[in-house]
Amino acid sequence: MNKKITIYDLAKTLGVSAGTVSRSLNNHPSISDKTKARVVAKANEMGYKTNKFAANLSKQQTNTIGVIVPKLNSNFMSTILAGIEKTVNEAGYNLIISQSLESMEKEKLNAKTLYNSGVDALLVSLAYDTSNYDHFTPFIHHKIPLLFLDRVHNLPNSSTFIIDNRLAGYEATEHLIQQGCKNLLYIGGNLKRNVYSERLEGFKEALTKHQLPLNNNPVLESDLSSGDVDSVVQHIRTLEHSVDGLFVANDNFAAHLIKALITAGYKIPEDIKIVGFNNDPISELVTPSLSTIAYPGYEMGVLAGQSVISQLNGSINFQSANSITLRHKLIKRESTYKS
Amino acid sequence: MNKKITIYDLAKTLGVSAGTVSRSLNNHPSISDKTKARVVAKANEMGYKTNKFAANLSKQQTNTIGVIVPKLNSNFMSTILAGIEKTVNEAGYNLIISQSLESMEKEKLNAKTLYNSGVDALLVSLAYDTSNYDHFTPFIHHKIPLLFLDRVHNLPNSSTFIIDNRLAGYEATEHLIQQGCKNLLYIGGNLKRNVYSERLEGFKEALTKHQLPLNNNPVLESDLSSGDVDSVVQHIRTLEHSVDGLFVANDNFAAHLIKALITAGYKIPEDIKIVGFNNDPISELVTPSLSTIAYPGYEMGVLAGQSVISQLNGSINFQSANSITLRHKLIKRESTYKS
Repeated sequence: MNKKITIYDLAKTLGVSAGTVSRSLNNHPSISDKTKARVVAKANEMGYKTNKFAANLSKQQTNTIGVIVPKLNSNFMSTILAGIEKTVNEAGYNLIISQSLESMEKEKLNAKTLYNSGVDALLVSLAYDTSNYDHFTPFIHHKIPLLFLDRVHNLPNSSTFIIDNRLAGYEATEHLIQQGCKNLLYIGGNLKRNVYSERLEGFKEALTKHQLPLNNNPVLESDLSSGDVDSVVQHIRTLEHSVDGLFVANDNFAAHLIKALITAGYKIPEDIKIVGFNNDPISELVTPSLSTIAYPGYEMGVLAGQSVISQLNGSINFQSANSITLRHKLIKRESTYKS
Repeated sequence: MNKKITIYDLAKTLGVSAGTVSRSLNNHPSISDKTKARVVAKANEMGYKTNKFAANLSKQQTNTIGVIVPKLNSNFMSTILAGIEKTVNEAGYNLIISQSLESMEKEKLNAKTLYNSGVDALLVSLAYDTSNYDHFTPFIHHKIPLLFLDRVHNLPNSSTFIIDNRLAGYEATEHLIQQGCKNLLYIGGNLKRNVYSERLEGFKEALTKHQLPLNNNPVLESDLSSGDVDSVVQHIRTLEHSVDGLFVANDNFAAHLIKALITAGYKIPEDIKIVGFNNDPISELVTPSLSTIAYPGYEMGVLAGQSVISQLNGSINFQSANSITLRHKLIKRESTYKS
C-alpha cells in the first residue's frame, strides 16, 4: 500500500514546521487565517487524512460502535440494523457489524475482537444457543455501553430493547381462539431465548383464560429454518387431536408452512388458522396473506441508536440504563379469517 | 468512560518495567515463560486491551474494511453482506458498514468518512442516482483496494463483481417468448445503473432475435418500491396493445405486482406471464410462484471478501484487479407456465 501522507510531509512541502501544520489543521487561534487556508488546501491536494483513530486514541474514543447480530441476511435483523446505522451515522459514528451465525462460540469471538478494537459501545442480539454471558463482562466492567435488542439478557448496567413478547403471544393466541380454534399449537425457536419463551407464556395464558385445555404437546421447538418445514408438517399430521390453530414465532417460517400445508391438502384458513410474527414483507405477499404481529424493528433500531449516542455523549447516565419496550400490533389477514 | 488499562498500569501493579510488560505481551524471546505467564494473567485480570488500532497505525493498517450499500434492509444486499462479513471476519478483519440510502450525496459523505477512518479497503454497491465518481478518487490515488459489487462502475484499478446482466435479461425474455408472449414490457430501475440498463439490452436483443416488434414503450422505469406498484398496474391497463409478458428487474417488486394484477382481475400466468430477478425467498412463496433469475449473492460476497483479503495480503496485485462474473441461472416456476 502507498505510504500515507503525514503532517511531516505537509510541513516539508509547505516549508513550515510540523507544529504549524498540526495547529492549522486543528484551527488553532495562534495561526493566521492565511496560513491555515494554505495548509488546508495543500492537505486536501495531497490527500492528507485526518488521523481520526490516532486523534481518538488520545481521548480514548474510536467513534465506532460494535454490533453482533445472529445473521445479517434476515429481513427482521437487517431492518433493525438499517435503523441503527442511519441514527449513529448521522451522529458521526461508524458501525462495525459482525454475525454470530447463531453460535455462542462465534459470538464470544466477535465480542472479544470488538472489545480489542476499542469500540465505544456494543449492541447485541443474542445467538440461538448462547447460555453463558461472560464474554460481555469486560464491557460492563469498563463501563462501555452495552445494549441488547430483541433477543436480550438482563445484565447489570446494560439496556434492553424489546417488545412485550408475552402480551403479543397472548393477543395472537386469543385472536385464534376468537376465530374458533380449539386445538392450538405454538411453533417457536429455542426456548432459552426470551422472545420464544415469553411468546409461549402468552400462548399458555390465553388458553387458560379461555378454558381451553393445553394439549399434551402444545409447543413445538424448531430452528425455524425452511429445512425444518417438512418435519413440522409431518408432526402436525400425526397429532392425535387435529390442530386447527397455529401460532408461529416468525413470518418466514409461517409462510413456508402455509405453502407446505396447502400442498399436503389442508385448507388455510378453513382447516387451520395461522398467525405469524414480525410483519415481514412476505406476510402480505403470501396466499392466503398472513395474520401477524407487527414488530417495529426499524423504530427499535433508531431508538437503540439514539440511546447509545446519548450514553456516549453523557446525556444519559448509562448506569441508569433500563429496558425500553416498543409497541407491537396484531394485524389480521386472510390466514385467520375470510374477508 | 472509565480509564482504560495501559501497559504502565500493568507494569506498576506487577512491579516490573513497562518494557517487560510490552515484550511479554508480544511474546518476545528475551522474557522468561514464567514472567510472560504472570504478565498475561494480570493483563487478562485487569482487562487490558491489545491496542490494535495503535499497533496498526504504525503499520498503516486498521484491519477494517469499509462497505457502502444502497440499503441494509434488502434481502439481496444483506445476503451479499453476510457472505462478505463471514469471509473477512475469518481473516481477522472487521467490517464497517454504511448505507447510502440510494443517495449520491450520502454515498459521498460515507466514502469520505470511511477514507478518513483509515479503512484498508472499500467495497461499494452504487446508489440509485450516483452520476459522479470523484468521491472514490482518494482511494484509487492512495492505492486502497476498491471493489464494486452488483451496481458497478468501471474505474481504473478497481475490481467489479457482477453477473452477466445482459445475458440474464436475454434468457428471461426468451423464456417469456418461448411461453408464447408477444407483447412484452420490461420494468427496470434507474437505467443509469449497469444492472438495469444491461438487462434492458438483453431484453431488446431477445425481441429482435425472435422478430418481435419493440412496442412504442417497451420499457418502464420505476424506483421498484412497493409504493410504485399501483401506478405500474395503471400503466399496464392503459397500454394500447395488451401486455402478455413482463420482465421485472427485482423479485420483491414482481411479487407485489403479481398480487396487484390479480386484484385488478388479471390471471397469472394465463393473461400475463412474469419473470423476476434475484431468486429472493419471496419468489418461491408468492402464489403463483415466480419464475426468476437466480443471482448468487452470498457467493458474490464470499468471492469479493476473498479478493479484498488477497489484495491486502499482497497475494493479488490490486493493479491487475479485474472484473469477476458469477454464474446466474433461469428458474422456471408457475408465473410463466402451469405445471
